[in-house]
Amino acid sequence: MSDARQRKILLDESEMPTRWYNILADLPTPPAPYLHPATGEPVTPDDLTGLFPMALIEQELSPERFIDIPEEVLDVYRMWRPSPLYRAFRLEERLGTPARIYYKYEGVSPAGSHKPNSAVPQAFYNKQAGIRKLTTETGAGQWGTSLAFACAQFDMECEIWQVKGSYEGKPYRRMMIETLGGTIHPSPSDLTESGRKILAEHPDSTGSLGIAIAEAVEEAMAHDDVHYALGSVLNHVLLHQTIIGEETILQLAKAGESADIVIGCTGGGSNFGGMAFPFLRERLAGKEGPVLRAAEPASCPSLTQGTFAYDFGDVAGFTPMMKMHTLGHDFMPDPIHAGGLRYHGMSPLISHVYHEGLIEAVAKTQQECFAAGVEFARAEGIVPAPESTHAIAEALAEAARCAESGEEKVIVIALSGHGHLDLPAYQAYLEGQLTDHTWDDEELRESVSESLAKLPQAAQQA
Amino acid sequence: MSDARQRKILLDESEMPTRWYNILADLPTPPAPYLHPATGEPVTPDDLTGLFPMALIEQELSPERFIDIPEEVLDVYRMWRPSPLYRAFRLEERLGTPARIYYKYEGVSPAGSHKPNSAVPQAFYNKQAGIRKLTTETGAGQWGTSLAFACAQFDMECEIWQVKGSYEGKPYRRMMIETLGGTIHPSPSDLTESGRKILAEHPDSTGSLGIAIAEAVEEAMAHDDVHYALGSVLNHVLLHQTIIGEETILQLAKAGESADIVIGCTGGGSNFGGMAFPFLRERLAGKEGPVLRAAEPASCPSLTQGTFAYDFGDVAGFTPMMKMHTLGHDFMPDPIHAGGLRYHGMSPLISHVYHEGLIEAVAKTQQECFAAGVEFARAEGIVPAPESTHAIAEALAEAARCAESGEEKVIVIALSGHGHLDLPAYQAYLEGQLTDHTWDDEELRESVSESLAKLPQAAQQA
Repeated sequence: MSDARQRKILLDESEMPTRWYNILADLPTPPAPYLHPATGEPVTPDDLTGLFPMALIEQELSPERFIDIPEEVLDVYRMWRPSPLYRAFRLEERLGTPARIYYKYEGVSPAGSHKPNSAVPQAFYNKQAGIRKLTTETGAGQWGTSLAFACAQFDMECEIWQVKGSYEGKPYRRMMIETLGGTIHPSPSDLTESGRKILAEHPDSTGSLGIAIAEAVEEAMAHDDVHYALGSVLNHVLLHQTIIGEETILQLAKAGESADIVIGCTGGGSNFGGMAFPFLRERLAGKEGPVLRAAEPASCPSLTQGTFAYDFGDVAGFTPMMKMHTLGHDFMPDPIHAGGLRYHGMSPLISHVYHEGLIEAVAKTQQECFAAGVEFARAEGIVPAPESTHAIAEALAEAARCAESGEEKVIVIALSGHGHLDLPAYQAYLEGQLTDHTWDDEELRESVSESLAKLPQAAQQA
Repeated sequence: MSDARQRKILLDESEMPTRWYNILADLPTPPAPYLHPATGEPVTPDDLTGLFPMALIEQELSPERFIDIPEEVLDVYRMWRPSPLYRAFRLEERLGTPARIYYKYEGVSPAGSHKPNSAVPQAFYNKQAGIRKLTTETGAGQWGTSLAFACAQFDMECEIWQVKGSYEGKPYRRMMIETLGGTIHPSPSDLTESGRKILAEHPDSTGSLGIAIAEAVEEAMAHDDVHYALGSVLNHVLLHQTIIGEETILQLAKAGESADIVIGCTGGGSNFGGMAFPFLRERLAGKEGPVLRAAEPASCPSLTQGTFAYDFGDVAGFTPMMKMHTLGHDFMPDPIHAGGLRYHGMSPLISHVYHEGLIEAVAKTQQECFAAGVEFARAEGIVPAPESTHAIAEALAEAARCAESGEEKVIVIALSGHGHLDLPAYQAYLEGQLTDHTWDDEELRESVSESLAKLPQAAQQA
């Protein structure tokens, strides 16, 4: 035999993109502005200066199509970027599909997911602005790990509040954060006013992202040299993630391929946006482009069953109100294992392009996702993160449709990370312990309405 | 700024070495033969055919300098190989050393370590010989994970006996093995005669590698279409691992560097041998070559404090007797976290070249190793396997010596894997729960003598 087939399409460090793509510059209609939670007026840069450095605030609102990546950020990116694009030969063989399946693998990053793509520039810009410490919240722990890594690179402190249920139930992420030098507390904690208030009322509280956000924000607001960092949803986070799609476009060209469909999972939207927006640029410029499809959990179906309206980004109503596909800010998602997709809303940018018909969305049940994850692991050797299995499940469905129709589609999966620290979820699946939950449309519409009725009047009318 | 510095030295798939290096062809004196445990006579190929396919038996004894890697094996290697060689800029900066530090990172493999380099060819040659299932034992679980992955690639079954203490105490590896399609049992099990015998005498036994080997071998011997696979120690395993060193030589040349010292950790010796032997080839051919230094645990110091003599490879005395640096086959290593280094003996090939003065060895305490692992993680973002921290600890010591002397040495670390599934060990270190154990020379010599006195006479005199 000598039919060597290329498994990975790699780029040299010298071929790594040096600019992020800002889709705001190309949208046919502008997305609705963020509104101030107290006044209902559009948020101004000044409203955000207590939490974020001006460089990031400018990126949040920038009209520039491309934004140069600072050399200091590129230097850290080069620790794992450009990330590999794999051809999934073994998976294709096992599926018996004529489709050609590629996956862009972000699990090679130090944190094991795409999250450092934004954690690194966020740490850098804050360091440049004289900030000593970053605070954040984390659920399952991917974002906390990424920020701890990024802060270590720029000799900054990192303080993290993790939802107590995850802190106690999934301890490996916490251990990784501490190994990387981060400080982590279970939330609610007695370190903040917000935490103490909850603990006084509910001493046994297992916490929520909303409470953890409140604690992290409170610590940031209390000190001039401390800022807060967010891992998804906002424009600047999706901007930083576009390096995923920019690299993928170069890699597909290198392989002589052109994508027919690109699939990514969506929770807050940063991985999917990072992959999809550069492909959308081509489409918005009038060229042919692939179908872009978001895969979300059936138990938390913000795009496929949510309402496109103004809502708070958090449970407590501290954040600006954003127009997005939402299940209501007090929606409580099921405790599914894809912790990173358990978010009531959706990035305003993703919501906007979905509303405009530029992308598609499907919802996947937990068991279908883990079945796909196991199939993928046995074929490709990589145990995917539970979040990433949503994209894989939809790719398998698409590959099966190709097997029926005979179409030789090129399917590209945004594989956001590995599942090494999520193995108990696989175990639960293999032991038949997982259940599925889908929502009745009407039931969901009602609960969203109730939730949105609690918003200030200005936002409800916008 | 525009001083882009290259973080990774990559090879294309087309540049991947296509031959393994067999050091047996170049040794000035031949290593002592294996002896049959019953007869004390040199082992013949026929003695091994119940456990291994002829292709591997031939490799075990081959006089050929280079052995072609089959295309089917290269095809699987390409899923993660060539593995990256990193320049550790951040580590150098944090250490303030003039040394240039590189690390060859095997943690990018599906199993997260160098082990698949041998698991894949072992599965392939067995598949080719018509074998349906491979059995093996595993301690911490790295080898079991690798063999499960390799068997999935060639549509073979994989059955693993894991030391019960690890099976229960470190469940993530077991979950990964099952996700990859392997079958895994705690050992002792009631599935084999050997297991049942132990359970009858010691119902609460937490098992040992010796018992697990006995169970895996028994299952292999009981069926014509079942074989056994070993993850270290033997010549053919080290042969397969030489792709690590072969790639590193190419990568250093690409970077315009020449190594002054190469450091790897040693348990059974497969990672260190795989890295060191290709460098040794240059030296044996009369050229200049780097210092080659093995780093082993102070609590299990086979090279630095063991006896060079014939001994069994396992506790039970089932295996051939091999001449090696040994602590005695009934030596019970401390329960250190670097499970992969808890072996009483050492690969006969590594033992031979150490005895001949061709390589060096040092012993490292557990706490020094974890301190080095944490330093490395904060600098380079990668949490190393506890085994790999032994090499890192010695590299940090060497870098410190360079900082004192001003020498600009090129230090190459064989980084055998990541520590994602070993995070509780880091937690224990960070919480100050680890202790160290070093051995008194005399005490150790006595216990080795007692152990070796149990060998057959023929082996004691050889």
